[in-house]
Amino acid sequence: MTQNIYDREEFFVGYSQMRRSLEGLDGAPEWSSFRALLPPLHGGSVVDLGCGFGWFCRWAREHGAGRVLGIDISEKMLTRAEVMTSDANITYQRADLESLDLAQASFDLVYSSLAFHYVVDLPRLFRTIHGALVSGGRLVFSIEHPIYMAPTHPEWLLDRDGRKTWPLNQYLMEGPRTTDWLAKGVLKQHRMMGTTLNLLLQAGFTLSHVEEWRPTDEQIASRPELAEELERPMFLLVAAQR
Amino acid sequence: MTQNIYDREEFFVGYSQMRRSLEGLDGAPEWSSFRALLPPLHGGSVVDLGCGFGWFCRWAREHGAGRVLGIDISEKMLTRAEVMTSDANITYQRADLESLDLAQASFDLVYSSLAFHYVVDLPRLFRTIHGALVSGGRLVFSIEHPIYMAPTHPEWLLDRDGRKTWPLNQYLMEGPRTTDWLAKGVLKQHRMMGTTLNLLLQAGFTLSHVEEWRPTDEQIASRPELAEELERPMFLLVAAQR
Repeated sequence: MTQNIYDREEFFVGYSQMRRSLEGLDGAPEWSSFRALLPPLHGGSVVDLGCGFGWFCRWAREHGAGRVLGIDISEKMLTRAEVMTSDANITYQRADLESLDLAQASFDLVYSSLAFHYVVDLPRLFRTIHGALVSGGRLVFSIEHPIYMAPTHPEWLLDRDGRKTWPLNQYLMEGPRTTDWLAKGVLKQHRMMGTTLNLLLQAGFTLSHVEEWRPTDEQIASRPELAEELERPMFLLVAAQR
Repeated sequence: MTQNIYDREEFFVGYSQMRRSLEGLDGAPEWSSFRALLPPLHGGSVVDLGCGFGWFCRWAREHGAGRVLGIDISEKMLTRAEVMTSDANITYQRADLESLDLAQASFDLVYSSLAFHYVVDLPRLFRTIHGALVSGGRLVFSIEHPIYMAPTHPEWLLDRDGRKTWPLNQYLMEGPRTTDWLAKGVLKQHRMMGTTLNLLLQAGFTLSHVEEWRPTDEQIASRPELAEELERPMFLLVAAQR
């Protein structure tokens, strides 16, 4: 079973105070790039894997989705999602992505934001998602970028010119990575970018778009701390099609 | 026009002494991974973009290719390739990949090893290759990995545990990179991995495989200096299909 870090009090409190928790999708700097990869929803069925507080589920309904299913491992997050939602076409369900089952050929879009990098058995999950999509259906997801996740000491250092530099190592050594982020001992699964893409291909997907997210010049102008995101990528966004 | 570094005397002499020049394909540690991505040749037509001394052109003929065309910008390399080749079905041609023209729908396989990262107008080249392939034809190529190419100071440093660490920065800042490798001022073009993959998709290709090359355990056992290749990737191998 996946480590349920989101239900640990210290993590939940910290996560709840992040901009992406308080402000929803617009509080996440990668959202506008993510949104550009989404297909028109046109009454289609959508599932959000790792739905958290349900921000995307509600957005999807407001932007044309028919039925929306939000899935998360965290009881605390789902409880808050329920409180924030009043829409009979949105359903929340508690489940672990490691052992997820979904009805065959029943979704037009599978969406997931920053959840798959916790999953050990990603081949199984990609096969499950492929089977759950209708023909032509889309999978659009983000994960923490493997360059961001790989290092033994993922902390900026300054090079001899004083430039922020990311101490990359262990990139080709796949497996667990443990970091202290909001709580001690958060467990993630490091995979090379090529590995994730090949797992999609092996599950039967066609790749549509691969994006190593970078902030726009406008974003950097309004939030100068985002400039460091030009040195190494933090997020990987992928769009694929059944 | 692409910088013709291979015809500079100092570079040519240095390059000629590398294992991959002296021993051919087996002298390149990534060759066995590369070879695994190649389709059966079955009498098909093959073009090698950046063919150098013609090692792959001759290998392809020995492994079932019909007609083979080797293209390179370097007069010195092509002269040596001609000397090393005695096969009427192998033709060499001097051309710049920036302005390459190829006959439409005339190749079953386009192969390229470590050449595309010199090309500025890669969108044009990918469109040219797509048009030159028969339907179902393959493009299999390697480039220097963008993680390897991106940094201002691409030299190992040691982290606080004494581990070899790659000083990554400028990853999301695409454009020229100049390094001193065999000669001063070698000019390469840095693109994010996602950018290269999206250019293939935009040219009409379907992606088949994306591999960030890593040495096998056997290779590391016999050449311990390869162990550092587990810290950051040096080569990116891609297979795509028209």
